[in-house]
Amino acid sequence: MSKHIADLIISAAHVVPVVPRNVVLKNHAVVVKDSRIIALLPRSEALEQFQATEVRDLKDHILMPGLVNGHGHSAMTLLRGLSDDKSLCEWLSEDIWPAEAKFVSPEFVHDGVTHAAAEMIRCGTTCVNDMYFFPAMTAKAFEEIGMRAVVGQTVMEFPTAYASNAAEYLAKAEEQLEAYKGHDLIKIAMAPHAPYTVAEETMKKVNELATKYDVPIHIHMHETEAECHDSEHQIKASMSCHQSEQKCRPLANFQRLDLLSKRVVCVHMTQLSDVEIDLVAKAESSVVHCPTSNLKLASGICRVSDLLAKGVNVAIGTDGAASNNGLNMFAEMKLAAILAKVATMKSTAVPAMTALEMATLNGAKAVGLGDEVGSIEVGKRADIVAVTCEDIEMIPMYNAISHLVYVASRENVSDVWINGKCVMQGRKLQTIDELQVKASVHKWHDQIRDFHDELQAKKN
Amino acid sequence: MSKHIADLIISAAHVVPVVPRNVVLKNHAVVVKDSRIIALLPRSEALEQFQATEVRDLKDHILMPGLVNGHGHSAMTLLRGLSDDKSLCEWLSEDIWPAEAKFVSPEFVHDGVTHAAAEMIRCGTTCVNDMYFFPAMTAKAFEEIGMRAVVGQTVMEFPTAYASNAAEYLAKAEEQLEAYKGHDLIKIAMAPHAPYTVAEETMKKVNELATKYDVPIHIHMHETEAECHDSEHQIKASMSCHQSEQKCRPLANFQRLDLLSKRVVCVHMTQLSDVEIDLVAKAESSVVHCPTSNLKLASGICRVSDLLAKGVNVAIGTDGAASNNGLNMFAEMKLAAILAKVATMKSTAVPAMTALEMATLNGAKAVGLGDEVGSIEVGKRADIVAVTCEDIEMIPMYNAISHLVYVASRENVSDVWINGKCVMQGRKLQTIDELQVKASVHKWHDQIRDFHDELQAKKN
Repeated sequence: MSKHIADLIISAAHVVPVVPRNVVLKNHAVVVKDSRIIALLPRSEALEQFQATEVRDLKDHILMPGLVNGHGHSAMTLLRGLSDDKSLCEWLSEDIWPAEAKFVSPEFVHDGVTHAAAEMIRCGTTCVNDMYFFPAMTAKAFEEIGMRAVVGQTVMEFPTAYASNAAEYLAKAEEQLEAYKGHDLIKIAMAPHAPYTVAEETMKKVNELATKYDVPIHIHMHETEAECHDSEHQIKASMSCHQSEQKCRPLANFQRLDLLSKRVVCVHMTQLSDVEIDLVAKAESSVVHCPTSNLKLASGICRVSDLLAKGVNVAIGTDGAASNNGLNMFAEMKLAAILAKVATMKSTAVPAMTALEMATLNGAKAVGLGDEVGSIEVGKRADIVAVTCEDIEMIPMYNAISHLVYVASRENVSDVWINGKCVMQGRKLQTIDELQVKASVHKWHDQIRDFHDELQAKKN
Repeated sequence: MSKHIADLIISAAHVVPVVPRNVVLKNHAVVVKDSRIIALLPRSEALEQFQATEVRDLKDHILMPGLVNGHGHSAMTLLRGLSDDKSLCEWLSEDIWPAEAKFVSPEFVHDGVTHAAAEMIRCGTTCVNDMYFFPAMTAKAFEEIGMRAVVGQTVMEFPTAYASNAAEYLAKAEEQLEAYKGHDLIKIAMAPHAPYTVAEETMKKVNELATKYDVPIHIHMHETEAECHDSEHQIKASMSCHQSEQKCRPLANFQRLDLLSKRVVCVHMTQLSDVEIDLVAKAESSVVHCPTSNLKLASGICRVSDLLAKGVNVAIGTDGAASNNGLNMFAEMKLAAILAKVATMKSTAVPAMTALEMATLNGAKAVGLGDEVGSIEVGKRADIVAVTCEDIEMIPMYNAISHLVYVASRENVSDVWINGKCVMQGRKLQTIDELQVKASVHKWHDQIRDFHDELQAKKN
């Protein structure tokens, strides 16, 4: 019997496919051809049945689907740690927005995204749902690197270096929607920034574009108590008040405008009533939980267990490195699991399998890629991560699934494949020049530090 | 002018001495002689004034005091991930206690502690406040490795492989108190397990011994709501009810018995009224906050900000690897800082400097070593950690202090010195054979897994 031809066989001691749930396959192999998984079977059978260009045998590893970062502002790695221990409003208005106004440019975005991609791949993230300025550059950088990304086309009312008004943001978005139709790695999404920065009329146009091109709508929603309170009480002087005359919380206004749908990816959602949870469940919108950012900015705690109980698709995101201060999805997974337990006072809330599913499959579903990535299943794209189980911190291992959530950290990721291509092997990045990244980050650092120091000096 | 003789000069791009607060010294050097820091000064001056046997120049690093893990059960690394997503009671009674009853022995403790020491040193921890069975073996293992430890002499009422009754636990404790008097690295502490496992009469004897030998009393206190409720309501059938006839919460009973003092190190403390915070503040007892363990077991959130506001010395601990599931003090520091913010809804709560102080100096103070370690100060023991700032995840860096708390993780630790001796250089352990640790952990894993599988099979 002649063997079937394949591009790649990866075998490992443990495979956690995520679908089906709670399964750990021992000594299995993933067979890849033309960027897709064509078989998942015992190692010996794989070697019997397939002839591959490359065979990788990972004896001390767990294979898992690549992590999907549900919410990021990739280029903001360049502002990591610029400002800490402040509230969302002060952090934005005193430090982040002035630095962005001064520095954000296509070059800044290129260098920041490349840096973020290096960090994410090293952390086992194979796909990010991104939102930032100059998204054409974001798409270009991720494409060059070979990392999967859902590139959000930022839309807001106020002028930035990227666009001067809503119409221009929308026009630029449509260009990208056209340019990346049917692309293998890059998917375009609409990214209206938030109810407090985008007017109702603009939101309707965003929705029209998203419907026309069948893409997600990625938006910050109910991030803080102030956003909800100031909208409900029409406190126009507040930067958090929604751009609407309606005396109601932003979600209620979205429902009134018929904007809630399964396209909508609501990020943060730390403020949710029972009625609002039902609203989101009925609309089949997704929620992205960003626990580190929400805790650090004292925004609140998303009611993840209650959302999941109502059948809402809840994913996990890091937010930008300026508020996290990293892009480590392993840390987010663990925090999501343990935070849900204390928030509900139930140690069974968000068990390891659920946290892992949120960080992989649910992220993929949120951005409309649920049939393409998020699990190791035949037919899906080969976005796969290998985690070593031999480091001192990783032994002993009694349960591979709980180990991925409660024990593993970013440095335990050894190999990463995206779309069937190896982007990190034995912790060495294959498509990014690390030294070049470091040089460019240091260059930005020096400029941003000098500007920030001057700004502080003026204040004092 | 002839140079002064020293053992070691470590210079680095950034030195965060912790004392004074909020200081980052650029291009400074720490000079070490006879295990103590004898100078901290600009690099060039250090090289001018001192002649050292060894000079280390760390151009891309931050030097910080070694982390002090305020609460651990080191040997429990061997049970890492054996049981997850359960409440404290179920986790203990269904999984941990049966496995301990079967396996805990001097050999188990030796191998587990050696494993834990390897993990802690790799994570930048130079001192641990430990509590477990066979503490003589714990002390021996840490001493051999050259790691600083405060070795708690476990005391409880019920029999274990280690001792058959309170009198025997106490007798064994006194032997150790005698054996390690004035030791360089090992300090003995009394470790009555908890109010629900130690009778009042035994607690009094513990207090007498601690006073006689001038050592800390390390105890689990107010870990869960059940512990407080069941004590107050005298629910004798509950394993959480304190061993007293008093209808009150355990802290109140400790006060009644005049047991609260500055020797007492209260671990967990997720349940605290305003009155109890005042009680602890007045007694000058310390509190050890174990955020990951408290979240994961759904125990609750310690009121860290309120304790600090009342002047209480609050340290940070990992708890055992069986409930964490690691010994990563960098992760605990970050979680302590961001959890306090959301718990108080103030993003300024527990800023980076405070978290860093809690994880170093406050830990040292809690165990009576505040004059010996916990900061980089002349006269103190040289327990020092170097953190590399050149990894992709560590750049750019605008503030070394917030970077240590919000950005750095265990793998960024490059070098560790304890008592002036290098125990890790360039991530290579100097006093522990990693391969031997791995071999012994795998041996224990196989036995424990088989036992646990059988136990599960019997239940089903």
